[in-house]
Amino acid sequence: MSRRTDRTPMHLNAFLMAAGHHEAAWRLPESERLTGPGVEHYKHLARTAERGKLDSLFLADSPALQGDPGRRPSSRLEPTLLLTALAGATSRIGLIATASTSYNDPYNLARRFASLDHVSGGRAGWNIVTTAGADAARNFGLDDTPLHRDRYRRAAEFVEVSTKLWDSWADDAVVADKESGVHARADRVRRIGHRGEFFRVDGPLNLQRPPQGYPLLVQAGSSEDGREFAARYAEAVFTAQQTLEEAIAFYKDVKRRAELIGRDPDGIRILPGVVPVLGDTEAQARELDAELDRLIVPEYARRQLARTLRLPPEALALDEELPGDLPAEDEIEGAKSRYTLVVELARRERLTVRQLIGRLGGGRGHRTFAGTAEQIADTIEHWYDSGAADGFNIMPAVLPSGLERFVDEVVPILQRRGLFRTEYTGSTLREHYGLPRPANRLFETVDRSPGFTGLGLTAEAG
Amino acid sequence: MSRRTDRTPMHLNAFLMAAGHHEAAWRLPESERLTGPGVEHYKHLARTAERGKLDSLFLADSPALQGDPGRRPSSRLEPTLLLTALAGATSRIGLIATASTSYNDPYNLARRFASLDHVSGGRAGWNIVTTAGADAARNFGLDDTPLHRDRYRRAAEFVEVSTKLWDSWADDAVVADKESGVHARADRVRRIGHRGEFFRVDGPLNLQRPPQGYPLLVQAGSSEDGREFAARYAEAVFTAQQTLEEAIAFYKDVKRRAELIGRDPDGIRILPGVVPVLGDTEAQARELDAELDRLIVPEYARRQLARTLRLPPEALALDEELPGDLPAEDEIEGAKSRYTLVVELARRERLTVRQLIGRLGGGRGHRTFAGTAEQIADTIEHWYDSGAADGFNIMPAVLPSGLERFVDEVVPILQRRGLFRTEYTGSTLREHYGLPRPANRLFETVDRSPGFTGLGLTAEAG
Repeated sequence: MSRRTDRTPMHLNAFLMAAGHHEAAWRLPESERLTGPGVEHYKHLARTAERGKLDSLFLADSPALQGDPGRRPSSRLEPTLLLTALAGATSRIGLIATASTSYNDPYNLARRFASLDHVSGGRAGWNIVTTAGADAARNFGLDDTPLHRDRYRRAAEFVEVSTKLWDSWADDAVVADKESGVHARADRVRRIGHRGEFFRVDGPLNLQRPPQGYPLLVQAGSSEDGREFAARYAEAVFTAQQTLEEAIAFYKDVKRRAELIGRDPDGIRILPGVVPVLGDTEAQARELDAELDRLIVPEYARRQLARTLRLPPEALALDEELPGDLPAEDEIEGAKSRYTLVVELARRERLTVRQLIGRLGGGRGHRTFAGTAEQIADTIEHWYDSGAADGFNIMPAVLPSGLERFVDEVVPILQRRGLFRTEYTGSTLREHYGLPRPANRLFETVDRSPGFTGLGLTAEAG
Repeated sequence: MSRRTDRTPMHLNAFLMAAGHHEAAWRLPESERLTGPGVEHYKHLARTAERGKLDSLFLADSPALQGDPGRRPSSRLEPTLLLTALAGATSRIGLIATASTSYNDPYNLARRFASLDHVSGGRAGWNIVTTAGADAARNFGLDDTPLHRDRYRRAAEFVEVSTKLWDSWADDAVVADKESGVHARADRVRRIGHRGEFFRVDGPLNLQRPPQGYPLLVQAGSSEDGREFAARYAEAVFTAQQTLEEAIAFYKDVKRRAELIGRDPDGIRILPGVVPVLGDTEAQARELDAELDRLIVPEYARRQLARTLRLPPEALALDEELPGDLPAEDEIEGAKSRYTLVVELARRERLTVRQLIGRLGGGRGHRTFAGTAEQIADTIEHWYDSGAADGFNIMPAVLPSGLERFVDEVVPILQRRGLFRTEYTGSTLREHYGLPRPANRLFETVDRSPGFTGLGLTAEAG
């Protein structure tokens, strides 16, 4: 084991999803019956994660109904609003919302994230996604998903416009000087005059610079385009990795790409997904895992898998392996890295469709660890010490129980081993992740923060 | 006085705006120094309005920086997010956010309002605006504001798409049946398949039907197009009226237009704006009013007035009347009814530019009442009994003090006179306004609610 010598504490994010990441978690006898979108349920999860001193919590999203509404709780509050509600139920934990660059306007979205950062006192993060899937496209006047490369070009410009808007007020713009009658100094608030391939945005934003400068920028795609995007813009990366070797290779690859374009690789935190299934004994954990798989309704799961593979459901026989003639990743428009991950998992372990459904039902491609708290802490430590991760994206199979057990049983072990904080030391999400507050690129500031090197912005202030 | 015989209690809305509706309110010695966007300030205002049992609170908005940032606090949190934070600080009061149909997509916005309605337990309202002004247009890739009529056509289609999305889940869609493994019934969730002039939206929404069915639909434009839109879609109307005669005429006109298209005119609540400036004596109130006007910085105010009138600032001499050759309303693209109101006010009272600036600095065209609590209650009662209003949009010149005084001094007088509730009887915004929960137009329901006749929707479910 190539143990890290420095024992830098790791970072932990709680990925919240309704009744849990396993699609059948809501059917367990102990699961709460979610008949609404679950505001109180999410408040409880947020408070639990904060009790465990986790860095952040995270909500996935797509602007479309995902799959069959019968299969699992699929009624979802808009994430920036839900996190605003959770900001009021917590005081320290970071709040990361997914939002699409393909189906938003930068002015509105940059303002919402700045608002979340103000409301939460500097705890906002933005998971930047380009949104695969024709269902979403058809809610926005399109017939199908835009091309993968076009989506990523738009995403890059979207982030550049957003950072300019966040920078359009100098940190010292507001003076609120009653005597002179000047509320904000006109020379410290600027138009951005952005003219690009996808967007023309004059600015300035109608909201002063957020407490964190920018919300934390997060990215979760692992395709070739996704890695390039992460290397350039992301400060935290969520990724699905099935094996330790693949996780190490991914980690090295993203950090190397960042270095190649002149960024400090330590400015990116990489967090592979972990789906813990916890038991008092290993046997108990395995039984819970098996029970969850038994509760999957195969028809729902087969339709979902067929959608991922761009096949008609009847092309998948439950007790046979995947068909041999699937397209290669570069022929796929949509969630490329997810497609490849599913196909490679099935081929590597020679899984039948039914077995594959079981594996995907839990972590949807992320690694499931069924075991005791000690075993899960061991695995997390091993991955961490092997250079596969700066931390982990915790995706409990069952919620809230899986998060409660993780916080009450796994976190204390990691704390005893010196691997995780025992108290928050900062108050912002950037402070939790040990990342600097970005300097304002449109205004010289006296106290310029160091180190934010990800963005090649040019000021076009007017 | 044609006193109403029934004494139906009136409706009161608190229109919140930073340090107050008077542009110079922030300069008063007693005003809080707002150096940030004021989350805690707004929470205090929301709790104060709820203490007064007001029906609702309301936030104006435009997706652009409004005027000179030096003139007044102009850093604004996005309203649906701010109201989500205020939902957590209150339990009964309605929460109305302004959002633009010109600069949003219906899928995203309908979802945000549904989310706010879920998070607040049925307290959301949407003030539907088409957004005048080139500044906003230039934040969304346009050179100038779209034509007034086009904006209103888009608004109408936007509302139709939104209501279809809110109806895309039957109220009884979610069954959460652990036994059968069905979370929501597939035949109770439907695509909407909307194909219109401005939008193509497949649906369904990825969020179940909001507690109120739809958020309360509010409208605030008083131009010809605005009145037609209000008659067709609005359930509450905010309006600026300078004289009692004009207010009565407006009230009758909107109700008549509603009747002409087959709506029950009682299904629309009309609330003219009132800017109370309160004092222990009339002289004290007048002195506060005068002090506020003295605190206006004339250069800021002149630039703002010039913008409204589409003139260069130097065309306005401070101590002369408006130039004689202003364009007619039908030549104006933008905020037509506001333009006319300003011009008519200046002409009618032969105000100099400096005097006009003073009048607009307070209520921006809404009627300012400076006086004692008793005098303000008398005026409100007089307008109400004269058939000019179903209630009032309270716009305190100074915040929080103006709202505190209104709640503590004016509300008790209205309550004693039997004109206003002494306790909330309902829990949703619709219940406060005495308006029905709309039936679902895409699904037959057993318990069909009566009376919502505003929308000519047709189901195109697929």
